[in-house]
Amino acid sequence: MDVAAYMAELGQQARAASREIARSSTAIRNQALLATAEALDEARTALADANRKDLENGRENGLDSAMLDRLELTPERIDTMIEGLRQVAALPDPIGVITDMTYRPSGIQVGKMRVPLGVIGIIYESRPNVTVEAASLCLKSGNATILRGGSEAIHSNQAIAGCLRQGLAEAGLPETAVQVVKTTDRAAVGELITMPDYVDVIVPRGGKGLIERISRDARVPVIKHLDGVCHVYIDSHADPEKALNIAVNAKTHRYGTCNTMETLLVDQEIAEDMLPLLAEQFRAKGVELRGCERTVKVLKGITEATEEDWHAEYLAPVLAVRVVDGLDAAIAHINHYSSQHTDSIVTENYTRARRFLTEVDSSSVMINASTRFADGFEYGLGAEIGISTDKIHARGPVGLEGLTSQKYVVFGDGHVRA
Amino acid sequence: MDVAAYMAELGQQARAASREIARSSTAIRNQALLATAEALDEARTALADANRKDLENGRENGLDSAMLDRLELTPERIDTMIEGLRQVAALPDPIGVITDMTYRPSGIQVGKMRVPLGVIGIIYESRPNVTVEAASLCLKSGNATILRGGSEAIHSNQAIAGCLRQGLAEAGLPETAVQVVKTTDRAAVGELITMPDYVDVIVPRGGKGLIERISRDARVPVIKHLDGVCHVYIDSHADPEKALNIAVNAKTHRYGTCNTMETLLVDQEIAEDMLPLLAEQFRAKGVELRGCERTVKVLKGITEATEEDWHAEYLAPVLAVRVVDGLDAAIAHINHYSSQHTDSIVTENYTRARRFLTEVDSSSVMINASTRFADGFEYGLGAEIGISTDKIHARGPVGLEGLTSQKYVVFGDGHVRA
Repeated sequence: MDVAAYMAELGQQARAASREIARSSTAIRNQALLATAEALDEARTALADANRKDLENGRENGLDSAMLDRLELTPERIDTMIEGLRQVAALPDPIGVITDMTYRPSGIQVGKMRVPLGVIGIIYESRPNVTVEAASLCLKSGNATILRGGSEAIHSNQAIAGCLRQGLAEAGLPETAVQVVKTTDRAAVGELITMPDYVDVIVPRGGKGLIERISRDARVPVIKHLDGVCHVYIDSHADPEKALNIAVNAKTHRYGTCNTMETLLVDQEIAEDMLPLLAEQFRAKGVELRGCERTVKVLKGITEATEEDWHAEYLAPVLAVRVVDGLDAAIAHINHYSSQHTDSIVTENYTRARRFLTEVDSSSVMINASTRFADGFEYGLGAEIGISTDKIHARGPVGLEGLTSQKYVVFGDGHVRA
Repeated sequence: MDVAAYMAELGQQARAASREIARSSTAIRNQALLATAEALDEARTALADANRKDLENGRENGLDSAMLDRLELTPERIDTMIEGLRQVAALPDPIGVITDMTYRPSGIQVGKMRVPLGVIGIIYESRPNVTVEAASLCLKSGNATILRGGSEAIHSNQAIAGCLRQGLAEAGLPETAVQVVKTTDRAAVGELITMPDYVDVIVPRGGKGLIERISRDARVPVIKHLDGVCHVYIDSHADPEKALNIAVNAKTHRYGTCNTMETLLVDQEIAEDMLPLLAEQFRAKGVELRGCERTVKVLKGITEATEEDWHAEYLAPVLAVRVVDGLDAAIAHINHYSSQHTDSIVTENYTRARRFLTEVDSSSVMINASTRFADGFEYGLGAEIGISTDKIHARGPVGLEGLTSQKYVVFGDGHVRA
């Protein structure tokens, strides 16, 4: 197979389809989403068969149990995909919204209209349900999509792709509006990220290694987040109860998510009082603490943190703890070590809260709230395709609006420039 | 000189300065802008001397008269730089603005705060006044800047850089917030566009060749526009007088600007009536017409256009003219040949106007207005650093807001995720 030619063909088809999708009505796009949900519901047996093939191959190829778990399409996961499609159909359509309409002294009226980006390339690993999640958000926001899932999920993804094609066809939209790459040849990824004529943006979802490789080699913009090294800073003016609740929730609500706290900073003024209370709670939850020199003096017996710990995204019941000399030191630590994902201050002090909000340069900055709130659903975006730690285009949780752009619209009445 | 080490040093200094600039108040940044204006006013002799050196070197090196003209810092151009600084100081500050603040069912309050991008790299050619224009917009929007001007303007740019440093120092801001690259070694550009740790975005200003090279090699996002192949489509339901005025203005108001019309599309239903009227006006203005087969049948004696003409950005008194079979053909032509800069329809038909607005995929789409309006000042942005034909991050004229990002801010009261 000539992978370059195949990918170029997908690209051309996607570009052509993107124009049709862009001018389709909200109702038609919603119809396609709902028809896909129906198609998935009717294809449960076929989906299970395809998934079984992937699981068998996976076991033969020695995939570990975590990967096999992510790969599995249980009936409940199919339910979730179907429900997800219905939820996306119910979201407000961002496309065509005109804002900031003003009259200019020249007499022209100028505003901004929200429009699709065009063609979005999605690159992801084992979980086949991403195929539906990502495709539905792109379709709702008027974009065409080329999806490149993991080779271990190829049969499941192709079965899902069939349902998406059926849904598009039933709504009278081009089936090429959502294309799932058929080859497992790795060269397909290299092609997908270097076709600026056919692909407007790449959204990679997966491990840090995958995302770093894609960012390095891509010739089109990439919406990504690399890691989530999130902080909570307990200020000397913090309400102790709020501090305890937030620290425990930010770390222990879920260990494997990118918005989980990985480093806790404590103001030295209150360290002697707060650290034992915190340690007691974390011990009860089975969280291992790694402390700075000053922390270790208060919490005898815990491991001393190394430089590596301040950079670590544990995604596990491990927490780095550092005592800092007040707000300036906390902000300096965060702006140096944070992955610019989510950082929170606990304080009752108005001025310190304001300074933290202004000076911490992260995609979500919080006051007296758990970092676990950094999420498209919690923020009211309805759904998210990922969380961006970039500053360009989309920052923080990326929902439908992050998959759109705005063009200027100008209304005149024969106006010419003087 | 070790260019890589030198550029890395500039980058580190810019990153450090960007944090100070980001948390500086509006008043302080405005003070720096106004102090720079004063410094330029007082340095007129030094500026003229430095500029004379550049002009002499330029003449020795055989620069053509157009380049020498762009290079020259006349007293009027210095006035314009000073006036520009004062205008930018008077613009509203985009930084810190919080929008879309809502309460979520969880009880947290979520909004977006506008923040600087960080460090902006500007790469430009001969015109030294760009140094002040670009630096002032970056400074106003809370960003640090590294500027790399053309080697032919090195003395002028360094003299201007001295005034900027003076202005920053007088306001108590770090002088490294605006750094003009001192070496004329071309390797400096290569370094500047591949330092993602120190530079957040690159804005190239100059010829298409320069911008293509930078886009190809950059490892950081680039806000750019490559060319302006702008269209006016005269629909069969156009008001003939408006059509004539708009077509003439869009082409002849200025020939060398990116928002100048380069191709005129005329609905076949009215071609026989409109083309002679148009031709008469263009002939009077000395504009050469190049027509499609059908145009040539009506306007006997004009040159027949080739495929190249539909792609051409003439920047000259030359216009390609094509007769099309109505709206669909016009939109198809534009979406194929347009550089997605600015395209305008002239029509009195409501439905066709709405379709053109929705289906033409350009950064500015206009109804009954001259393409020449596509401009930051005309749109009310106050100033522009360029016009983006990309869809990611900034599209169309880029003002202060295009040099910013938004972060999520979350206000809680001890809230944790359930």
